[in-house]
Amino acid sequence: MNYRLILNIIGRILCVEAAFMAPALAIAFCCGEGRAVTAFAVSMLLTAAVGALFTAGLRPRYGGFFARDGFVTVGLAWIVVSLCGCLPLWLSGAVAGFVNSLFETISGFTTTGSTILTDIESLPRSVLYWRSFTHWLGGMGVLVFLLAIGPRTGQGERMYMLRAESPGPSVGKLVPRIQKSASILYKIYIAITVLQIALLLLCGLPALDAVTVTFGTVGTGGFAITNNSLAAYGTAAQAVTTVFMIACGVNFSLFYLLLIRDFGTVFRNEELRAYLGVIACSVAAIAVNIRPLFGSVREAIHHAAFQVASIISTTGFATVDFDGWPEFSRMILFLLMFIGAMAGSTGGGLKIVRVSLIIKAARSSIASILHPNSVNLVHMDGEVVDEEIVTGVKEYLLIYVLIWAGSMLLVSLDPFVDFEAAVTGVVTCLNNVGPGLGLLGPSCNFSALTAFSKLVLSADMLLGRLELFPILILAVPSVWKK
Amino acid sequence: MNYRLILNIIGRILCVEAAFMAPALAIAFCCGEGRAVTAFAVSMLLTAAVGALFTAGLRPRYGGFFARDGFVTVGLAWIVVSLCGCLPLWLSGAVAGFVNSLFETISGFTTTGSTILTDIESLPRSVLYWRSFTHWLGGMGVLVFLLAIGPRTGQGERMYMLRAESPGPSVGKLVPRIQKSASILYKIYIAITVLQIALLLLCGLPALDAVTVTFGTVGTGGFAITNNSLAAYGTAAQAVTTVFMIACGVNFSLFYLLLIRDFGTVFRNEELRAYLGVIACSVAAIAVNIRPLFGSVREAIHHAAFQVASIISTTGFATVDFDGWPEFSRMILFLLMFIGAMAGSTGGGLKIVRVSLIIKAARSSIASILHPNSVNLVHMDGEVVDEEIVTGVKEYLLIYVLIWAGSMLLVSLDPFVDFEAAVTGVVTCLNNVGPGLGLLGPSCNFSALTAFSKLVLSADMLLGRLELFPILILAVPSVWKK
Repeated sequence: MNYRLILNIIGRILCVEAAFMAPALAIAFCCGEGRAVTAFAVSMLLTAAVGALFTAGLRPRYGGFFARDGFVTVGLAWIVVSLCGCLPLWLSGAVAGFVNSLFETISGFTTTGSTILTDIESLPRSVLYWRSFTHWLGGMGVLVFLLAIGPRTGQGERMYMLRAESPGPSVGKLVPRIQKSASILYKIYIAITVLQIALLLLCGLPALDAVTVTFGTVGTGGFAITNNSLAAYGTAAQAVTTVFMIACGVNFSLFYLLLIRDFGTVFRNEELRAYLGVIACSVAAIAVNIRPLFGSVREAIHHAAFQVASIISTTGFATVDFDGWPEFSRMILFLLMFIGAMAGSTGGGLKIVRVSLIIKAARSSIASILHPNSVNLVHMDGEVVDEEIVTGVKEYLLIYVLIWAGSMLLVSLDPFVDFEAAVTGVVTCLNNVGPGLGLLGPSCNFSALTAFSKLVLSADMLLGRLELFPILILAVPSVWKK
Repeated sequence: MNYRLILNIIGRILCVEAAFMAPALAIAFCCGEGRAVTAFAVSMLLTAAVGALFTAGLRPRYGGFFARDGFVTVGLAWIVVSLCGCLPLWLSGAVAGFVNSLFETISGFTTTGSTILTDIESLPRSVLYWRSFTHWLGGMGVLVFLLAIGPRTGQGERMYMLRAESPGPSVGKLVPRIQKSASILYKIYIAITVLQIALLLLCGLPALDAVTVTFGTVGTGGFAITNNSLAAYGTAAQAVTTVFMIACGVNFSLFYLLLIRDFGTVFRNEELRAYLGVIACSVAAIAVNIRPLFGSVREAIHHAAFQVASIISTTGFATVDFDGWPEFSRMILFLLMFIGAMAGSTGGGLKIVRVSLIIKAARSSIASILHPNSVNLVHMDGEVVDEEIVTGVKEYLLIYVLIWAGSMLLVSLDPFVDFEAAVTGVVTCLNNVGPGLGLLGPSCNFSALTAFSKLVLSADMLLGRLELFPILILAVPSVWKK
């Protein structure tokens, strides 16, 4: 393991994080939020100091950086970034207790959006801004950002880091150079962000609301700065957000293909078709199911579409308390939590491509009984999928199921949770969605859980966001042996 | 497909089933249960007539019987046997409606033990006997029975049928000849049955109770003839049943090895160790967790041991309403439902060996990231597990998860169910356990569900008992093409 280089990279990420705290500090200063000013100033200094120590204090040794180094870098970086990122919440007194602050920050960076806050509107505006900004940074990826602004590492090292942080079973580079790819991704990301902020301002949202809702949307996070999520805003703002939630669940490579006018590839993309197909079917089924609860068909479709987009993109915003919907609709939303968005998007979950491959592998498994001597290959986008990727997806699913089972058992120790809360709480955190059902539903929050449960769920959020391995690998003793 | 031979085999199974209705008819006659006498007489005649038609009316063509024919035979046989087996319940008026009778009978044959009866004690004794007897026959397998008494088929055909009906990822023959293997299995099964009946009689149970509880135990079914399951009997009878439930979750091949005094192999068996280990840990954890609910440590251990044995062996008996236990204990029991018993036992669930292989495959998957160039093989009992078996287990899990998700969605259409009932109802049926949690818990029953839900759950029970493929394959259109 190349510890020096790993710490060096993490150090540079911390410096970037400290710099990103500056706008929040400015907001605190302008709004006269005394304690928050101190909190952000101290947090910035501490984060920058640790970052400088790692970066300048250790002379990195280049080379000798392999796949596992990439995973360890990403896993450690996210933990360290979360630890530093929670300081403003904790020091400003906005969030009570360190564990709560850490939970809220990990929920932010992992774009989960589960909250332990009972009265969100009482928080300082600077803290609300920072809390939502973690979604934006975590959405596209902390390391991808570092790659975009160009770290002093080799192409191989960049590839290993990109692979460890990118969602999906395989990594697609847009262009041969990784730095260029990361930079294009962030440019598209920024363009989408700006566009949504502009549209939300046009819908009449105040500036801070427009910015934070946008951060929550494009990062598919789900933190709102109102107590009742997006129910506070008008139908137009909700509709705009619906469209952007769906868009941010799309593989960002496809936006690049649109930009270079390769419409054919986008149109033929199987994962995109499956994604839009699942959305269309779910909206239709739920709209019919919840029709009696609303005054008009249009209204039922509006809320069904918003909620489906919110859950499948793993954003987690709500316009109504969908926990009160009929069981069939709730079950569809529960299953959508697992499915999640497209690989290469900012969304979480298993990812559409994995679910597609799982279904195809299942069919091929049945076919191989009928025709034992024929070779049953799995196809995607008209091409044979590498056997290694199919095996990888199968193994991903089984590790995922084991983590789910283990987490449910640990969370069930909590005197607050019932069966529904334990099952859906873990699912919503592991898939970076946000709200669960029942006691942890959209109108409730995670504050009543024990510190132990919050730490388990925090681990689940990191496991889900980083697609298991970068975090799991940290628990293997042999990684830490010289 | 060799339809003639398939129908011929099913015909012979129906003749056997008709013969097995005789004791129930005798009981109905002796107890003067007028309507039940007619019901059993008519059912026997009908079943025998259809059986004779298939057997004698179609001249079987031997040869040309492949793996898929084995699966189709087993799948169809179980459906036809259930359809005929539910006639006595339906015709006697003991169970209201055909769908209810079918659900109850499939629950019986698949050794699930979920019931739609609200007042079990009001049923005729002959019907209670038959209902419990379906557990006994379904436990070891309907086709295995036919193999044991020697059908006129070739060794290859027997192997395909055995493989399709036997639980577990690989089929172990005790001795080279399949008929001999099946016969040994049934002899052990009968010996265990006789022993438990004798012990329960010693514990003071009435004859019918001793026989039906034994059928429910050795088949790991769970139908009781009292309204409060085994709470009606004394501690001694409960303790005896605990031991026999655990024993019947053991691979029956191990009993054969004990008989031929090969103690070393039994002792070293990894699946057995894991099975007993999981039981010990679960009992300890639950006993500590439920201690405050009971008067003494002994009592807590007694009920914890009974319930763990009941759930992991997928029997489903209850001595207390474990649905009222703390969430941690309920969650352990819920997870035990998935794990299930050992392969080659009469129990259901994923099977210990599959769960072990899943955990080992997960570990090997993580190891392959750390050491990309090393070969990470999965070991079991000190030997390398065939790659094909490991892949089979992974594919089993993913099909299993897809069926679980699909069934939950369908069941959630039912206005009666809530989230907990939908999730646990499907899990308990798919794993052939019996009771779920909450609305479908041990003190409740499945009667309030819609006919549609009952049919979905019936399909799940068959899918679970036959380990997916024999039923799934019936839904593939190409199987039915000439």
